[in-house]
Amino acid sequence: MPPKKLQVAAAGLGRMGKRHALNFLNRAPRAELVAAFTPDPEEMQWAKQHLEPYGVTLYDNYEKMICQPGLGAVVIGTATSVHAEEAIKAMEKNLHVLCEKPLSTDIEVCKSVAEAAKKRPHLKVMCGFSRRFDESYRDAYKKTYQGLIGRPSIIRSQTCDKHDPSGFFVAYAAWSGGVFVDMAVHDIDLTLWFFGDDIVPKSISAHGITAVQPDLRKYNDYDNAVGVVEFHNGKIAYYYCSRMMAHGQEDTTEIIGTEGKLTVNGNPQSNLVNFYHAGGITREVPAHYYGRFEMAFVQETNEFTAACLDDTPLPMKLSNAVKAVQIGAYLQEALVSGKQIHFDEIGRRIEKAQL
Amino acid sequence: MPPKKLQVAAAGLGRMGKRHALNFLNRAPRAELVAAFTPDPEEMQWAKQHLEPYGVTLYDNYEKMICQPGLGAVVIGTATSVHAEEAIKAMEKNLHVLCEKPLSTDIEVCKSVAEAAKKRPHLKVMCGFSRRFDESYRDAYKKTYQGLIGRPSIIRSQTCDKHDPSGFFVAYAAWSGGVFVDMAVHDIDLTLWFFGDDIVPKSISAHGITAVQPDLRKYNDYDNAVGVVEFHNGKIAYYYCSRMMAHGQEDTTEIIGTEGKLTVNGNPQSNLVNFYHAGGITREVPAHYYGRFEMAFVQETNEFTAACLDDTPLPMKLSNAVKAVQIGAYLQEALVSGKQIHFDEIGRRIEKAQL
Amino acid sequence: MPPKKLQVAAAGLGRMGKRHALNFLNRAPRAELVAAFTPDPEEMQWAKQHLEPYGVTLYDNYEKMICQPGLGAVVIGTATSVHAEEAIKAMEKNLHVLCEKPLSTDIEVCKSVAEAAKKRPHLKVMCGFSRRFDESYRDAYKKTYQGLIGRPSIIRSQTCDKHDPSGFFVAYAAWSGGVFVDMAVHDIDLTLWFFGDDIVPKSISAHGITAVQPDLRKYNDYDNAVGVVEFHNGKIAYYYCSRMMAHGQEDTTEIIGTEGKLTVNGNPQSNLVNFYHAGGITREVPAHYYGRFEMAFVQETNEFTAACLDDTPLPMKLSNAVKAVQIGAYLQEALVSGKQIHFDEIGRRIEKAQL
Amino acid sequence: MPPKKLQVAAAGLGRMGKRHALNFLNRAPRAELVAAFTPDPEEMQWAKQHLEPYGVTLYDNYEKMICQPGLGAVVIGTATSVHAEEAIKAMEKNLHVLCEKPLSTDIEVCKSVAEAAKKRPHLKVMCGFSRRFDESYRDAYKKTYQGLIGRPSIIRSQTCDKHDPSGFFVAYAAWSGGVFVDMAVHDIDLTLWFFGDDIVPKSISAHGITAVQPDLRKYNDYDNAVGVVEFHNGKIAYYYCSRMMAHGQEDTTEIIGTEGKLTVNGNPQSNLVNFYHAGGITREVPAHYYGRFEMAFVQETNEFTAACLDDTPLPMKLSNAVKAVQIGAYLQEALVSGKQIHFDEIGRRIEKAQL
Repeated sequence: MPPKKLQVAAAGLGRMGKRHALNFLNRAPRAELVAAFTPDPEEMQWAKQHLEPYGVTLYDNYEKMICQPGLGAVVIGTATSVHAEEAIKAMEKNLHVLCEKPLSTDIEVCKSVAEAAKKRPHLKVMCGFSRRFDESYRDAYKKTYQGLIGRPSIIRSQTCDKHDPSGFFVAYAAWSGGVFVDMAVHDIDLTLWFFGDDIVPKSISAHGITAVQPDLRKYNDYDNAVGVVEFHNGKIAYYYCSRMMAHGQEDTTEIIGTEGKLTVNGNPQSNLVNFYHAGGITREVPAHYYGRFEMAFVQETNEFTAACLDDTPLPMKLSNAVKAVQIGAYLQEALVSGKQIHFDEIGRRIEKAQL
Repeated sequence: MPPKKLQVAAAGLGRMGKRHALNFLNRAPRAELVAAFTPDPEEMQWAKQHLEPYGVTLYDNYEKMICQPGLGAVVIGTATSVHAEEAIKAMEKNLHVLCEKPLSTDIEVCKSVAEAAKKRPHLKVMCGFSRRFDESYRDAYKKTYQGLIGRPSIIRSQTCDKHDPSGFFVAYAAWSGGVFVDMAVHDIDLTLWFFGDDIVPKSISAHGITAVQPDLRKYNDYDNAVGVVEFHNGKIAYYYCSRMMAHGQEDTTEIIGTEGKLTVNGNPQSNLVNFYHAGGITREVPAHYYGRFEMAFVQETNEFTAACLDDTPLPMKLSNAVKAVQIGAYLQEALVSGKQIHFDEIGRRIEKAQL
Repeated sequence: MPPKKLQVAAAGLGRMGKRHALNFLNRAPRAELVAAFTPDPEEMQWAKQHLEPYGVTLYDNYEKMICQPGLGAVVIGTATSVHAEEAIKAMEKNLHVLCEKPLSTDIEVCKSVAEAAKKRPHLKVMCGFSRRFDESYRDAYKKTYQGLIGRPSIIRSQTCDKHDPSGFFVAYAAWSGGVFVDMAVHDIDLTLWFFGDDIVPKSISAHGITAVQPDLRKYNDYDNAVGVVEFHNGKIAYYYCSRMMAHGQEDTTEIIGTEGKLTVNGNPQSNLVNFYHAGGITREVPAHYYGRFEMAFVQETNEFTAACLDDTPLPMKLSNAVKAVQIGAYLQEALVSGKQIHFDEIGRRIEKAQL
Repeated sequence: MPPKKLQVAAAGLGRMGKRHALNFLNRAPRAELVAAFTPDPEEMQWAKQHLEPYGVTLYDNYEKMICQPGLGAVVIGTATSVHAEEAIKAMEKNLHVLCEKPLSTDIEVCKSVAEAAKKRPHLKVMCGFSRRFDESYRDAYKKTYQGLIGRPSIIRSQTCDKHDPSGFFVAYAAWSGGVFVDMAVHDIDLTLWFFGDDIVPKSISAHGITAVQPDLRKYNDYDNAVGVVEFHNGKIAYYYCSRMMAHGQEDTTEIIGTEGKLTVNGNPQSNLVNFYHAGGITREVPAHYYGRFEMAFVQETNEFTAACLDDTPLPMKLSNAVKAVQIGAYLQEALVSGKQIHFDEIGRRIEKAQL
């Protein structure tokens, strides 16, 4: 008898949802995709062609899907606004959950998911931050914890998207939570990983501009923003988010220690080709984050599966996902208000009058 | 009913055989590994643990395995000496064949496989040269054939292995065919790809040394060798093979055209990490070819599967695999004899007396 | 008769003063070093050996030196505290002035030099910011002003020194003006160059830590600091200064435009050598700023000389040098106070009560 | 009294001659350019403007120039055909000689210069191979001789010029001696430097094509050529020369040892700028060898001067310059004849009949 496989249902078949569904279908040897849900007729059409023939049952009703017998886990790739609700419902059906980031743009909602998960410690509930599964970031982490750079003290990290002139980002800003919640949340998560998730912010500043998408202003958002988080233990993280890159996706991180430095993706590249021509030497850059992180998502799929089947610890804690959104929200507030925010040593906010 | 999958048997479960078996088992959604053969008890033990539980029937007899009902294809990863025989036997059972390179180190044996395949044009018979499936080489090929570098005229290509002090390479040299047949065959195949497989050698030179493995001399082999192949249409390829690299695998190719140049892997690297330390800035390099080409092997697995199921053309011709070995054998001869070899315009060798 | 040469006197023969003196002596064909001043006996000893034999008259009194007949210009490389005074005295003797940066760490003193220079428009008075003379920065500037990156919108720039465990930086902090005045002033000057010197700050934040030199705190200084300057015209510059680099000097700048990006020194390197070894591939990094910018200083020497002899405009305005120190001082204040600073559209500071 | 300066005369004011003259005039503090010779009226016109005002006496007669009283040395930058004659005449006037490479394209003429120099051991006679003065090559040499790469065993070196569609290279081929004598002579010189100048060739092969300049054939020359030199002590050097580069000058060298590898200029670049744009990331490349090696020529100028003034050994032996041309001539012969050439252990050529 072959070893047991994890039966997985996919919720949402949009851009990222499709990828999760296909990863569980084709690239996770220990899992099998058995169900998929989408409320969208076009996505359903796609599913009939690409999932149904392989034995995946399709649903236009999330609640029905999670009742399918034998199901072990749900991967949630729907709109952010329903992540939390769907995650909680899945837990109530005793299902493991892999949820796209963020749990919510609202920190209280994030906390409610974390609390629901706390009550069911036998369930594996993970909010996937793909960079934690990327082999380059893992190599940097390993080297950091081998002590190669001394005490990590400064992190510079950026999430920079290729400029999209279609106006998509403006529409998206209506509900994304803002650049620091939507984009920098990855960089904040990396900070929690490399500095330790018990770090406490001391002060937060942020500044932004709208250089190419002035309409973002109506949602209090920016297309370029710089934020700084100073922590109580003598560490600083500073972030740059942009949606204006001409050349493609550029997600770069530096971990600067007292005795050395590690960079991840300091020299962005699509592959190992260099083109020598009359204008110089050129290499190409991935156009989108999936071009950069595709294998990290596959890795995430397989590690989540293994943790569910073997009842081993997940590679990252759910509480981090909550904390990352919280810091992102503070940065966004500092950005919009133009005011620095301060915190005491146990993380309580210090009001202006107290300063 | 789910779409039909290709039922595949794996012959040989050594280092490369295991990888092929696992790729067909786990990373080829349209194939299923149903059988595996090995004459080696240790490999059989491994198979009982890693393949049998997933429904793979195990054999210690190749002939029996290829009679398993329903079988569609065989992947051959045994010792080179039996590649040809096994490939021909599989064809006789009406099976598609994916064979590790080379078909044989003996050019006549290579030809016999090609002839057997020619008689069964409905079968897909491919000798896998992994670099043809690597995304960087493919990008370079696409750019070349878009005309970005004008007319490709010079190829520099090298296959350089990390130094292995264990003595493995000496034992291996007894039957490998020599560095140009074993290693440069990849670079020669790339030459046939980029220059076109109808090119005719005009003259061939080669020089070698034994810098770190003097015992190679007893098998007429070398640990470092340089070879040059000049073609009748005004093109040159030059190759460097080495088994002496301190830093890891370094397989680099330059395609130099009349209007530009493309390099593949001009800057070897394991991942996107750079480590800054008191001695400078360091990046690591893959230790072995599988570290460099793993995803190319996965791609090969899937494209072979698709060609078998859809009856579409294979991505490379079997005759190339024969021609690559032939040129490799001439280079090896030039290396050992210390004599340049010449050919007329239709590829016939010109003897010394005629010059 | 040979063309007239500029007769130059060098004030100060410390680390940087020596270099200026030797550059005017040996690497400025249109200038001749005719005099040098130092109050320091050890430096005087050096001068007797390295300058006097070549016809340079030595002085231990600055006032006397600047009275030497025939003198055309003074290069000032003394301690920062006397830069301004010496510059003004030189102008009073009708001499051109090339002054090491900064004019002063006190903004009012800086202004007094600028005013003195304004009264003598026939004199060339320049505070040398070496990066303006570096061929890479100039190439980036040229490309920016050819429009290759659209509208420059974000600048990231850092001045990072190699860690010096000797304690030198602590002593130096007593009078350096702090990291933003001493180090980031270069990055601020680059900002004024690339964004235009008429830009007006809108808000300024800064955060710092003392990771390796805790004693800096007694001078209100830091060994790592991050600062952000947001400008009224929708541009942002953010800076990182560090004295903690293990690997050497790393002065990197990115100019990010609406249609492209330019990096200067994104991949630090001492020369064109790469060393491949068992641990990977390593390149070295200059240990100090002079290793990175030596040729820029030579260029500065020659361009200053040409401007004096030909009465052509200097390559940079003195007022920039004042403005750069002013922004540096605001950053330093924000760093020490932990408060964001705001400015109105004509650059007047907005007090907290007004916000 | 200022220390004595070396009085230098410059012969030839063509492209390279001008540079030598200006380097001695402006960038060699211990030398002074006092005379210059050119038979060419246009060059004389240039000299009247750029040299005469600085006290340089001009001559249209070489013999007269070298009689100028006080002269200490001659730098020869005339056409290759007169290098040897002028060098010998200068020695007869008791002058030190710095001669552009090569001494001659004729090996017997080269030897005659070396013999003339041998008779006057008090004179410094150097044929300048600029790469010996380049800081990157020197760093690689230092690392090699510190043992960082074990025993150097393989050298790959290339001299690749930017394609010049003007037809210049065809005219030039009439008297250049061919690509291996004109271009690869630098790579051969590097080989003698890194492997030691006592190495003895064992066999030589070469192959070439005319991809963009078919008219080169009338002078038995090629626009792309690959040559291999195998040495008796178990070392190999292989060379690539090209005049077809689209992107600029690309002079790259690898020194491959038993325990590591060094590359020089593996990543060609004009400066430290990278341009990020919609097509990827681009860096520029120097268009010509002087863009790559300018500072090496300045260094050469100063080290030659120092050796003359201080009577210290020259940084390279004249006999190397002879040996480099000899190996170049053998490579050129192998290229044109299409035959491999063999040598016995003391370097005597083995004729075909003996093989």
